[in-house]
Amino acid sequence: MLKLNYKIIFHFLGLLLLFNGGFMLLSALVSLIYDDGVTFQIFSAGIITLLVGVISMFLTRNHTKEMNKREGYIVVAFGWIIMSLSGTLPYVITQSIPSFTNAFFETMSGYTTTGASILNDIEAMPKGVLFWRSTTHWIGGMGIIVLAIAILPLLGIGGMQLFAAEAPGPSADKLHPRITDTAKRLWLIYFGYTVAETVFLNLAGMSFFDAINHSMATVSTGGFSTKNASLAYWNDQPIIQYIVILFMFLAGANFVLSYFAFKGKVQKVIKDEEFKLYFRFILVFSIIAAVIIYLKADHSISTIHHPMVWGRGESAFRHALFQVLTVITTTGFISADYTLWTPFLVVFFFGLMFLGGSAGSTSGGVKVVRHLILIKNGFLEFKRALHPNAILPVRYNTKAITGDIVFNILAFFILYMLSFIVGALVFSMFGIDYTSAVGLSASSLGNIGPALGSFGPVNNYAALPPLAQWWSSFLMLIGRLELFTVLILFTPFFWRNR
Amino acid sequence: MLKLNYKIIFHFLGLLLLFNGGFMLLSALVSLIYDDGVTFQIFSAGIITLLVGVISMFLTRNHTKEMNKREGYIVVAFGWIIMSLSGTLPYVITQSIPSFTNAFFETMSGYTTTGASILNDIEAMPKGVLFWRSTTHWIGGMGIIVLAIAILPLLGIGGMQLFAAEAPGPSADKLHPRITDTAKRLWLIYFGYTVAETVFLNLAGMSFFDAINHSMATVSTGGFSTKNASLAYWNDQPIIQYIVILFMFLAGANFVLSYFAFKGKVQKVIKDEEFKLYFRFILVFSIIAAVIIYLKADHSISTIHHPMVWGRGESAFRHALFQVLTVITTTGFISADYTLWTPFLVVFFFGLMFLGGSAGSTSGGVKVVRHLILIKNGFLEFKRALHPNAILPVRYNTKAITGDIVFNILAFFILYMLSFIVGALVFSMFGIDYTSAVGLSASSLGNIGPALGSFGPVNNYAALPPLAQWWSSFLMLIGRLELFTVLILFTPFFWRNR
Repeated sequence: MLKLNYKIIFHFLGLLLLFNGGFMLLSALVSLIYDDGVTFQIFSAGIITLLVGVISMFLTRNHTKEMNKREGYIVVAFGWIIMSLSGTLPYVITQSIPSFTNAFFETMSGYTTTGASILNDIEAMPKGVLFWRSTTHWIGGMGIIVLAIAILPLLGIGGMQLFAAEAPGPSADKLHPRITDTAKRLWLIYFGYTVAETVFLNLAGMSFFDAINHSMATVSTGGFSTKNASLAYWNDQPIIQYIVILFMFLAGANFVLSYFAFKGKVQKVIKDEEFKLYFRFILVFSIIAAVIIYLKADHSISTIHHPMVWGRGESAFRHALFQVLTVITTTGFISADYTLWTPFLVVFFFGLMFLGGSAGSTSGGVKVVRHLILIKNGFLEFKRALHPNAILPVRYNTKAITGDIVFNILAFFILYMLSFIVGALVFSMFGIDYTSAVGLSASSLGNIGPALGSFGPVNNYAALPPLAQWWSSFLMLIGRLELFTVLILFTPFFWRNR
Repeated sequence: MLKLNYKIIFHFLGLLLLFNGGFMLLSALVSLIYDDGVTFQIFSAGIITLLVGVISMFLTRNHTKEMNKREGYIVVAFGWIIMSLSGTLPYVITQSIPSFTNAFFETMSGYTTTGASILNDIEAMPKGVLFWRSTTHWIGGMGIIVLAIAILPLLGIGGMQLFAAEAPGPSADKLHPRITDTAKRLWLIYFGYTVAETVFLNLAGMSFFDAINHSMATVSTGGFSTKNASLAYWNDQPIIQYIVILFMFLAGANFVLSYFAFKGKVQKVIKDEEFKLYFRFILVFSIIAAVIIYLKADHSISTIHHPMVWGRGESAFRHALFQVLTVITTTGFISADYTLWTPFLVVFFFGLMFLGGSAGSTSGGVKVVRHLILIKNGFLEFKRALHPNAILPVRYNTKAITGDIVFNILAFFILYMLSFIVGALVFSMFGIDYTSAVGLSASSLGNIGPALGSFGPVNNYAALPPLAQWWSSFLMLIGRLELFTVLILFTPFFWRNR
């Protein structure tokens, strides 16, 4: 058997369960306030989760502090799995989602901040359960922040080392106690954004309950809505959609930059190369989409939205910006069914699924910084072809970055594309047609939510066969944890003692 | 103006025109033999091409021998373009293809050994023109061999350096006169395979004319057929399809290995890692496809093929092997419409479009050796994540290969995927639906031929809008020339004097 510090692993997993159970009790409180009739069930789920957590922590109380890389990988991957497993309890006990497969899909979709749903009638769900559903991706988002700041850079996954140096506080060369400080600062911003958006949405006319749920969904780039029509429900209230647009933009940017902005270091934000590219991507792609929607597609938009308020131009602009942001930041809210727009826009949005937001944000996908390095390296590769003896390092935020990091990023991208293709192949084995299979794979892996074809923006994942739901859950997990973190567990040498 | 040795560039281009003109005269001879009524037109096309070639060579007769990398890139890219431009003459002068766009598409499809066609009724074409059409990809195949052996390794494109060391004869460290020997040896094998296949096909019952055209199409992995139904025309003569299967297999393998085999060095062949993977890919994918066809899809096959001869099992096996080989080797012959099989097989064949045959073969696409290096490096990347200080080089055919080459291959793959996505986006701008756009891009870039959706195996490219035909031609060209060779011409620094 592999020599591992099992105690510390179970200690951490117990801690996560405590955390999860606590949030379930909060959902039980919401359930009580709205008197939705399932308070006791959600409360029980919370108590069970807390108990298992407490027992696990008690049994492992005498653990040592030392943790190696291998145990780090295990804690991260199994942490997400244990959260998703325990997170099914409120759904299953309340019988809101009777099937365990469906419930697991919904929670994994939550913790990975994907936001794909198997619920056919969201509005019919008890409010406490809906709040729990939003909580899952809000917790997921918190997990992602700590992962990006503290854990992935240490593990050296897909170029995340690059990002570590940029984090505020002490240099992140080892799992320093002060890393916690950084995480706490960023969590404060995360929390602040959630509160701010709730207030704004509420002032703009959304009910308090819808406001808080949509805030949690936005800031975590999750995208679970409390309405069946998602944000298209508010198509006659553009101000609500603009608020969501603003917060999607913030949630898809590096939280460290938000921190700098609040500290008044605006120069650090506007000079950040990843931020500039993130901004340009959104700008350019929104303009392209807006022009096309304006010229060609507005008759299709109107099929799912309410009469336009500020005229056709504003509507085209807003829907373009909204949908570009929702896909790039991997939130997955819907303001309109882009698959009904022109054939060009279908391929266009499919392409955007491979962008992702910024590193250090809650968004999934490949991430802007990796594209930036890939683009820069691509140009240099041409130069290298002409001048093979010149030394041409890739520069990021004025610093030359090592070949190793570029290499990691290249390898990450290839593994991502490979996972995408294998993902689509497996979906197609369930008899799912080409467009839908390819869309499902890209959407699951990128933690986006809506896919294409039969699983497009106005559909949900209820029609997905059970085994395909498990497959989608797996893709969400590996995509969320930057591939290597999970896939390394499938290599034989990982389990070999050195 | 950029300082270039223009004389040597035009000298080489002139030489290519001489070559092309000579082959047109051969087609005129075929036209004369079959008395198809267009002998004089094809003859004129040949004479015009020869004249331009002679004039170009005469005007540049006092060129110096020195040629730098930059001029090398220009000769390769413009060489393919000048071949395609002059290659339209037989189509245009005979009015077999009246539109210049269509004619250019058909010739570019030929010289890049793609085999996509805009012809609606192939069988109605004059025999001399059909022979010319087959000649274009046969010449293209010869060009590819010399490119792979002698030119790309020097330019250091996408890891082709790796391959150079394996070529027979002297080491290919500079454009050595003895490189010509290597090219001549491989051309002899190429020619020999063409003759052998012609004889076999003729013995198996194909007319001599069909046999020679299909041989040229097979050995070049081009895939132009003289029948509207392509190889499905011979669905009641399995022996013909098996002969084509054998030669597709040989044409998709490294010609250098064929050379070794003929020299009796069989060990070198069976120990070659790329060959082993090429063989395994074909074996595994054919078995998967055969089982699925056998279980599920044989009713769909029978819609386009004749009654089965040796029973359902043999038919499933043959069609699976045929279609897997035709896609992997990027030949693009059709024995059955795989898009009518199960949804899984559509995605499956779409995935196969990204494999490609072996380096040093006439096939297009990413190539097996690159996948091999990517797979090996992928595994090592996991090990590196666990043991960051270990030095773990990728090994190929027992030799450790440098990080630079792995880097080149990674960059190549990413550029390939990027070109694929941009390719699909541009197609979708013409209103082409998602599946077709994605299929067209993968098929054009990989020099395969048949795509998916509206441009699938039983369709042709006639319905493609003119501008989209130019785009497809561009993708075929960049795919054929390993991306960097052409795309580098679009970088500003290429045109700057040092």
